[in-house]
Amino acid sequence: MASSSSSSSGGSERKLARDSPLDNRARFNLSPVPSMDGDEDDNVKYENQRDHPNLDDIDAESGEEVDLTGGAQGSTTAVTMLDNHDDVRIGFGKKYNNDQVTNVTYVVRKHYENFETIDWLKDLMRNRIRQRNLRAQRRQSCKKRLIFWYDAWSGWICVLLVGVSAGIVAGFVDIGAKWMSHWRTGVCTSAFWLNREQCCWASRDVEYDEVHNEICKYWRSWSDIFGIDKTTVSAWFFGYFMFIFWSVIYAAFIVVLVVGSAPYASGSGIPEIKTILSGFIMYGYLGKWTFFIKSIGMIFATSAGLIVGKEGPFVHISCCCGNLFSKLFPKYGNNEARKREILSAAAATGVSVAFGSPIGGILFGLEEISYYFPYKTLWRTFFCCMIGALVVRTINPYGNGHEIQFPVEYNVPWATFEVIPFIGLGILGGLWGALFIKTNINWLKYKKTNHIGRYPRAEVIVLTLITAIFCYPNSYLRLTMPELIRRLVGQCHLDDHMDLCDYERDKPIATATAKLYAAVAGPGLHRAIWQLFWALIVQITLVIFTIGTKIPSGLIIPSISIGAIAGRLIGIITEQIAFKNQHLAILRHECGVSNEHCVTPGLYAVVGACAFLGGVSRMTVSLVVIMSEVTGGLSYIVPLMVTALTAKWVGDAFGEGIYEEYVKLSGYPYLKSRESFPFTLKAGEAIRANRSGENPPLACIMQDGMTISRIDTMVRQHPHSIYPVIISEDFPCLVGQIQRRDLLAVLKSRKMQLTYTQTKPLLNRKISVVSMSNLLNKSGQPSSLGMRRASLALQASKILQLHKLVDRAPIIVTDQTPMEVVVDMFRKLGCRQIFVTKNGRLQGILTRKDIIRLMHEANVSRKFEQ
Amino acid sequence: MASSSSSSSGGSERKLARDSPLDNRARFNLSPVPSMDGDEDDNVKYENQRDHPNLDDIDAESGEEVDLTGGAQGSTTAVTMLDNHDDVRIGFGKKYNNDQVTNVTYVVRKHYENFETIDWLKDLMRNRIRQRNLRAQRRQSCKKRLIFWYDAWSGWICVLLVGVSAGIVAGFVDIGAKWMSHWRTGVCTSAFWLNREQCCWASRDVEYDEVHNEICKYWRSWSDIFGIDKTTVSAWFFGYFMFIFWSVIYAAFIVVLVVGSAPYASGSGIPEIKTILSGFIMYGYLGKWTFFIKSIGMIFATSAGLIVGKEGPFVHISCCCGNLFSKLFPKYGNNEARKREILSAAAATGVSVAFGSPIGGILFGLEEISYYFPYKTLWRTFFCCMIGALVVRTINPYGNGHEIQFPVEYNVPWATFEVIPFIGLGILGGLWGALFIKTNINWLKYKKTNHIGRYPRAEVIVLTLITAIFCYPNSYLRLTMPELIRRLVGQCHLDDHMDLCDYERDKPIATATAKLYAAVAGPGLHRAIWQLFWALIVQITLVIFTIGTKIPSGLIIPSISIGAIAGRLIGIITEQIAFKNQHLAILRHECGVSNEHCVTPGLYAVVGACAFLGGVSRMTVSLVVIMSEVTGGLSYIVPLMVTALTAKWVGDAFGEGIYEEYVKLSGYPYLKSRESFPFTLKAGEAIRANRSGENPPLACIMQDGMTISRIDTMVRQHPHSIYPVIISEDFPCLVGQIQRRDLLAVLKSRKMQLTYTQTKPLLNRKISVVSMSNLLNKSGQPSSLGMRRASLALQASKILQLHKLVDRAPIIVTDQTPMEVVVDMFRKLGCRQIFVTKNGRLQGILTRKDIIRLMHEANVSRKFEQ
Repeated sequence: MASSSSSSSGGSERKLARDSPLDNRARFNLSPVPSMDGDEDDNVKYENQRDHPNLDDIDAESGEEVDLTGGAQGSTTAVTMLDNHDDVRIGFGKKYNNDQVTNVTYVVRKHYENFETIDWLKDLMRNRIRQRNLRAQRRQSCKKRLIFWYDAWSGWICVLLVGVSAGIVAGFVDIGAKWMSHWRTGVCTSAFWLNREQCCWASRDVEYDEVHNEICKYWRSWSDIFGIDKTTVSAWFFGYFMFIFWSVIYAAFIVVLVVGSAPYASGSGIPEIKTILSGFIMYGYLGKWTFFIKSIGMIFATSAGLIVGKEGPFVHISCCCGNLFSKLFPKYGNNEARKREILSAAAATGVSVAFGSPIGGILFGLEEISYYFPYKTLWRTFFCCMIGALVVRTINPYGNGHEIQFPVEYNVPWATFEVIPFIGLGILGGLWGALFIKTNINWLKYKKTNHIGRYPRAEVIVLTLITAIFCYPNSYLRLTMPELIRRLVGQCHLDDHMDLCDYERDKPIATATAKLYAAVAGPGLHRAIWQLFWALIVQITLVIFTIGTKIPSGLIIPSISIGAIAGRLIGIITEQIAFKNQHLAILRHECGVSNEHCVTPGLYAVVGACAFLGGVSRMTVSLVVIMSEVTGGLSYIVPLMVTALTAKWVGDAFGEGIYEEYVKLSGYPYLKSRESFPFTLKAGEAIRANRSGENPPLACIMQDGMTISRIDTMVRQHPHSIYPVIISEDFPCLVGQIQRRDLLAVLKSRKMQLTYTQTKPLLNRKISVVSMSNLLNKSGQPSSLGMRRASLALQASKILQLHKLVDRAPIIVTDQTPMEVVVDMFRKLGCRQIFVTKNGRLQGILTRKDIIRLMHEANVSRKFEQ
Repeated sequence: MASSSSSSSGGSERKLARDSPLDNRARFNLSPVPSMDGDEDDNVKYENQRDHPNLDDIDAESGEEVDLTGGAQGSTTAVTMLDNHDDVRIGFGKKYNNDQVTNVTYVVRKHYENFETIDWLKDLMRNRIRQRNLRAQRRQSCKKRLIFWYDAWSGWICVLLVGVSAGIVAGFVDIGAKWMSHWRTGVCTSAFWLNREQCCWASRDVEYDEVHNEICKYWRSWSDIFGIDKTTVSAWFFGYFMFIFWSVIYAAFIVVLVVGSAPYASGSGIPEIKTILSGFIMYGYLGKWTFFIKSIGMIFATSAGLIVGKEGPFVHISCCCGNLFSKLFPKYGNNEARKREILSAAAATGVSVAFGSPIGGILFGLEEISYYFPYKTLWRTFFCCMIGALVVRTINPYGNGHEIQFPVEYNVPWATFEVIPFIGLGILGGLWGALFIKTNINWLKYKKTNHIGRYPRAEVIVLTLITAIFCYPNSYLRLTMPELIRRLVGQCHLDDHMDLCDYERDKPIATATAKLYAAVAGPGLHRAIWQLFWALIVQITLVIFTIGTKIPSGLIIPSISIGAIAGRLIGIITEQIAFKNQHLAILRHECGVSNEHCVTPGLYAVVGACAFLGGVSRMTVSLVVIMSEVTGGLSYIVPLMVTALTAKWVGDAFGEGIYEEYVKLSGYPYLKSRESFPFTLKAGEAIRANRSGENPPLACIMQDGMTISRIDTMVRQHPHSIYPVIISEDFPCLVGQIQRRDLLAVLKSRKMQLTYTQTKPLLNRKISVVSMSNLLNKSGQPSSLGMRRASLALQASKILQLHKLVDRAPIIVTDQTPMEVVVDMFRKLGCRQIFVTKNGRLQGILTRKDIIRLMHEANVSRKFEQ
C-alpha cells in the first residue's frame, strides 16, 4: 500500500515508504508461496501493471490467462482491479487513469447494504484519495483541469440545485395547499385557480367576517353555487357537507397513495433524517417516489384539514432533493459520508424554505440534525439556505412581499413583569410537550399490537372525518393552521372588526398606525375566547392521534398553532388583569404611567408558539431564531429565549424530545451526539460485559495466512462485518482489519476459479489457480523444478493471503481507556468499530451497536437506581 | 489502578478487575522486590488504607513511620496521597472522603505550566470521576446531597454571574465612553455627568446641526465656557485644541496604564481567546488586572477618538469574568477543560452584550471561537447570553428603550436588481479586508524589527494626535463611531435636516412616517458625500496603524464604520442612478411603477458594514445574524447573506481572516479546526519525517522498572512532557504513558527521602525508603529473613516502579493511519499526543505541536507547488 502511495508524492515519501519491507508484501495475492524472492522486482512490475490497467481483465477468466502466460499475480490483480475499475467506471468513465489510486482498501468498498451504518473515516479517506488523484492529474491536460475544477465546484453546484429545487417545491406546495384548503369552502368564480385571498384582491368591495376572512362577490361558497339560499340552515349544512366531503376525498387519495406506493412518505421524516445523517443507510427513503408522493401528500394532508404541518416533511423533501441531485456528482453520489454533507445542507434548507427563515434553518441543521460536521458544511449550508429563501421570495407564496410567514407588525416594547406570564407559558409548553410525547408514543405502541394498525387507510379516513366534523362549526378551526396562527400573532388595528379585536373603547384613536390603548373586553372577544378554548381542546386531542398515521405529517405547525392559541388566551387574560389593576405597583410604572398598551396579546401568541414547539421538540437557539424570523419580531428575542429555556427545562424533566423518542420507538441505531455516557466502564471491561456469559473466541485472521476452509468456517460461524487481522494466535498483535464483504468476494472468486480450472487438463487442475510466478522461470516457461513443486503447491494453495485487502489503519484503544473516551471516538470520528488492545495484544472489538446497547442498558440501570 | 477502581462500582466490575493479574501489580510503589507473593492480600490492605487515608501522612516523614510500624507500602501511598490530598483540599476541604477516588492518574495532575496545551481527555476524565464520587456520596448525608446539587448547578450559577457581570460592565463602559467622548467637545452645565444626548433631553428647544447632533442651551462647548464668542475663528480653534487636548490626555493615560500594569489588556483579545479556548494556557491573560484595566481602557481608547472599537475587547473582558467567577466553583476552577466551557459561554456573552445581540453572540461563539464543544455548552451559552442581554437592556445604554444599537426603523422591501450593488459591496469589502490584513500585519512585523516598537507609549500618543487633528475638521469623523454608524444606517425622515437628507423635493410628503420618494440630490447631500469620502480615506488609513498598538483595540466597530460609509456612498450613488434612469426596463418594474423609494441608502450602509466586517473577520452566519440583530432589520437577511458570502469568497482568495493571521503572527499553537490537512502522509511516515535526520532513540520507560539514575538521565536528556511506557526494549509494546511532571515529583520525593534517611540509623539508611511490606512478616515485625533480604534490597532499591503513575489509556494509532485521521483525532478528541504503533510495537509519538508544524510545512510546500 505504502509502496504504491509513494508514487503520488515527493521523493522523501518514497524513501520513507521503502523503509518498511513488510509493506512490499502488503498486497493482495493468492500466491501459495509465503516467502518470495525478487520481491522488489515483482512489486515494480505490479505497479507498472497497475499504472496501465487492462480494462479487459476484469473477469477471472482473462485474469487466469494472464497468469499462465507469465504475468505476475495476474489473477490477484484481477480481483483488485475489478473493484478499482468498478469504482472508477462510475466516477469517470473509461478514460480514468488510476495510477494515483493508492490504497485499495479505500477504493474497494463503495456501497453499503441497506440498514448498515457507514464508516465515515473510510469514506472520507476514499474521497481524499480521489481528490488528490484529480489534483495531481490536473496538469496533464486541459480536460483534466476542467474536470478538476468541475469536481471542486460540484458541491456548490449541487447545493445550488438543491436550494433552487427545494424553494420551488416549497412555493408550489404552499400555493397548492392554500388553494385546495379554500376549495373545500368555495370557489373563485372569476378564476377557479385562485384561492380566496387572491380572488378577493381583484375585488373592490372586500369585507371581512369575524375571523378576518375575506368576503367578496367573486368568491362563492359551494351552497351559493348550488343555488341554496345563504341565510338558511340548509346552506350551512350543505357547506358543512362539502367541507367534510372534500376533506375525506383529499385524505383518502393521499393515504391510498402513500400506503400503496411510498410508505416512506408518511410521518415527518425528521427522526429518520437524523438517523440517516448520523450514518445510517436506508435505501429508498430519499428516493424520487418518496419525494414525489410526499410533496403531493403534504398538499393533500394539510388541505384535508388534518392537524398536521408541512414544515417537518419539507426537511425530508429537501433531503430527497439533496439525494437525487447528489447522484449527478460522483464526489457525493458515490460516497455516503460526503453525501451526508449535501443532505445536511438540504435538511437546513428544508426549514429555510418552509418558514422563510434561512438563519433558523442553518441553526436547526446545526442543533437538531447534523451530526459529524457542524462547521465543514456550515458555509455551504448557508449558501443553500440563502438560495432557497431567495427562490421562495421570488415565488412569493405568502403574498405579502416579504419573506415573513406570520408577520408581527408591531414593535411594542415588552414590560419586565411580563416575564412571569412568559415563564408560565414556558411551563405550560413543557408540560404539554411531555404529555403529548407520552400519549402519542403510547398510542403508536398500542396501535402496533392492536388491529387498528392493520387498517391504516381506514384510520386516516375516519380521523379526517372526525376532524372535519369537529372543525367546521368553529370558525377558528375552519381556517387553515397557518391562517389561524397569522390571526393570533397579529395585533389589533383600528380597522379590524374581527372578534378578537372587540374591545369596548371609550376614547377614539388618532391614527391607524398608533397603538391601541387597553380597554375592557367586548362581547366579541368573550365569544372568541370560548371558541379559541374549544379549538385548543380539539387540536390537542386530535393531534395525538394524527401524528404517526400513514400520511405526511409534520408536528411543527400543529405545535405552533396550539401554542399560539394558548398564548393568545393567556395574553388576553393578562391584558384584562393588567388593565383592571393599573394601580398596582408592579404594573403602574409600565402600564399606568406611559398609558400605552402594556400587554400585547399577539406577542403572547408568539411566545406561546415558541413554548409549545419547544416543549415538543426541545430545540433552543434554533427555535428562538425560527420564531423571530417567522414573525419578524426581532425585539422579542429575550422573551422567546426565556420561554424556550423554561419549556425545555420542564419538558426534559419528563423525558426526551419527540424526535429522540421516535428514533427510539423505531429502533434506529442512532448514537446521540449529546448524551453523556453514564457508566464507569473501561473498554476492556465493556468487551467482557459485552460477551456476557457465552464468551466465544474472537474470530481473527492470521497475518501469515489461513487455509480457505478455515476462513470459510469462520466466515460462516461468525457473521461479523469486520474481522481483525493479527500476527498469529500466540501473538495476537493487531495488524489490521478486513471487511467481511471483501473476504466473501475473494472466497467467491476463488471458488469460481477452482470450478473453472476443473474443466482444464489435469496439470492445470492440480495447481488450480495458484499464481505460478514463482513456479515459472523468468522467461515465463514452466521449469521442471516448477513442475515438481507444483504438486507440492497443491497443499500450499489452500493458504490464502489477503494482504491487499487488509486495512492497516484500524482505530485502536487500550483496554484501560474509559468508555467515555471510546464513545467520544465513535461519535466524533465516526468509526464503525474500535479494536481494544492490551499491551499491543488484541482483546476484542467494540462496534457502534455495542455502544448503543451499552448506553441503553446503562440508562435502564440508572433509572432503576434512582 | 483497576484494583482500586473496582472499589467504586458493582460486583461485576470487581470480578472483571480481578481477571488481570497485571493490574494487581499496577500500583505505584518504591518496593525493591519485583515479584511479590501475597499480592492479593497486600492489595486488599492497600485498598483498605486508601479507603480511610490518614491525612497526616502527607509528608514523607510520617509516611516513613507508618512504613516501619507495619503499614503496607506506606511511603508509596504517601506520595500518592500527597497528590490526592492536595487536589482534594482545594476542592472540598478536609472533610472530603476520597474512598471513591479511583484513578490516580486523573487526579494527580491538576495544573498546567504556562503556555502549555491542556489534555482535554484527561481533564474531562478527572471531572467525570469527581462527579461520580459526588453522586455516589450523595446518599450518605444531607450535606453531601446539598454539595452534590450545588455542584450540579454550579455551571448555571457561574454563567448567571458571568452574564450579569458582563452586562453590567458593558452598560458601564457604553455609558462612560459616550460621556467621555462628548466631554471632549463640551460639558453639560445642568449636570456635568450627562452626555450631550441626555443633557438635551431635559431641554425643550433642541435643534440639530448638519450631522444631527443635538444643540441645546444646557450643553455648552468649551469655547463657550471659556467665554470665547462662538462665531469667531478662534472659538473653532479653541474647540479644536480642547478636542486634541482631551484626546491625547485620554490616550496617554490609558497607554501608560496598559504598558505599565497590564500588557495583556492591549489589542482585541479575540485571537488569544481563540487560542486559549483551543486548550492553551496563558496565566494572567484572564486575570483581574487585565479585566480591570481593559474595562477602563476601552472607555478611554474609544473616547480618545482612536479608530478602535470596544466590541472585540468585550469578548476578552467577558472571558475574564468567566475566569474569575469559575474560580468560585471547583468544578470549573480546578479543571482547565471544564473551565473552557464557561469561557466559551462568556466569549459569546461578550458579543451579546457588546451588540445587544444574544443570538449573534451564540453564533459567534459557535462559528468563530469555540473549539471542542459546540453543542455541550450551547445550552448554557444560550442562558448566559440571555442574561447578559437582559442586564444590558435594564441598564439601557443606547437610550432608546430597545436592545438595538443601530436601529433601522424602515421596512422597505429591497428590489431584486439591488443584488448587483450588494455583490459589488461584498467584493469591495473582501478586497479591503485582504488589503487591511496584509498592510496591518506587515506594519506590525515592521514595528517589531524597527525602533518604533520600542516606544509604544509615544506611538499611541502620536497616533492620537494625528487622529484628533484629522478628525475634528470633518463633522462625521468628529462623531464617535457608533454615532456615525447610527446616522448612516438610518433612513431620512421628513423632519431630518441633516446634510445626508438634503434632497430637492418638489412634491410635499403626506405623513411623517410615510416613505420619502426619491429625488435629486441637493447641495447638502453633495457636501455630505465629499465629507464622507474624506472620512472613509482617513479611517481606512488610520485603522491600519491603530490596530495592534498597546491599547485595547477592537476591529469590529471600525470595520462596520468604514463599511457603512462606503455602503452609504454607494447607496446614494445607486439611488441617484436609479432615480435618473427610472425608465430603464430593469428599474421600471420596481422603481418606476410602484413610485416608491426603490433604493434605501441606509440599507446600503448596513450591507456595506456587513461586507467590510466580513472581509476582515471572514465570519458568515454569525456576521449576518449580528448585523440583523444590531440593526433590527430582519427583512434584509438575504441581502446580508449575499454580501457576506461575496466578501468571504473574495477575501479568502487573498489569505486568511484577521484573527487567524494574528494567531500566526503571535505563533500560538492553534490547531485550526476547519482547515483540511493537505498531505498524503501516514502516521508512521510523519514520525520519520518529524525526526528528519538526527533520529534520536525514543525516550521510553520500561514496564519492569528502571534504575533511578537511568530515569534521571533520561529525564534530563529528553525533556519531553510525556514518556511512553513499554514492556521492554526488545519488545516495545506500548503499556501506557507517564507525565514528566509526575516523574519529576517522584524523583524529587525519592531524593528527599534519601537525604532524610541519612540522618537515621544505619539500618534504616541502608534500605532507605524502600517499602518494607515484603520484608516484614504479617504481624508487622521485621523477620530475620526480611533483615537479610534488606541488604540485598539496597541494590534493588535503585529500581523505581511507577505503576501507579502510569496512565494506561494512551491514544494509539497504527503507523498506517492516514494523517488526516490523526489530525482529526487531535482536533476532535483534544488529546495532547498520540502514540504511533506498528503491529502493537511503539514507533513514535506525535504531539499537537508536531501536527501544527507539519501542517505549516505542508502549507508552505503547497504554496511553492502552486
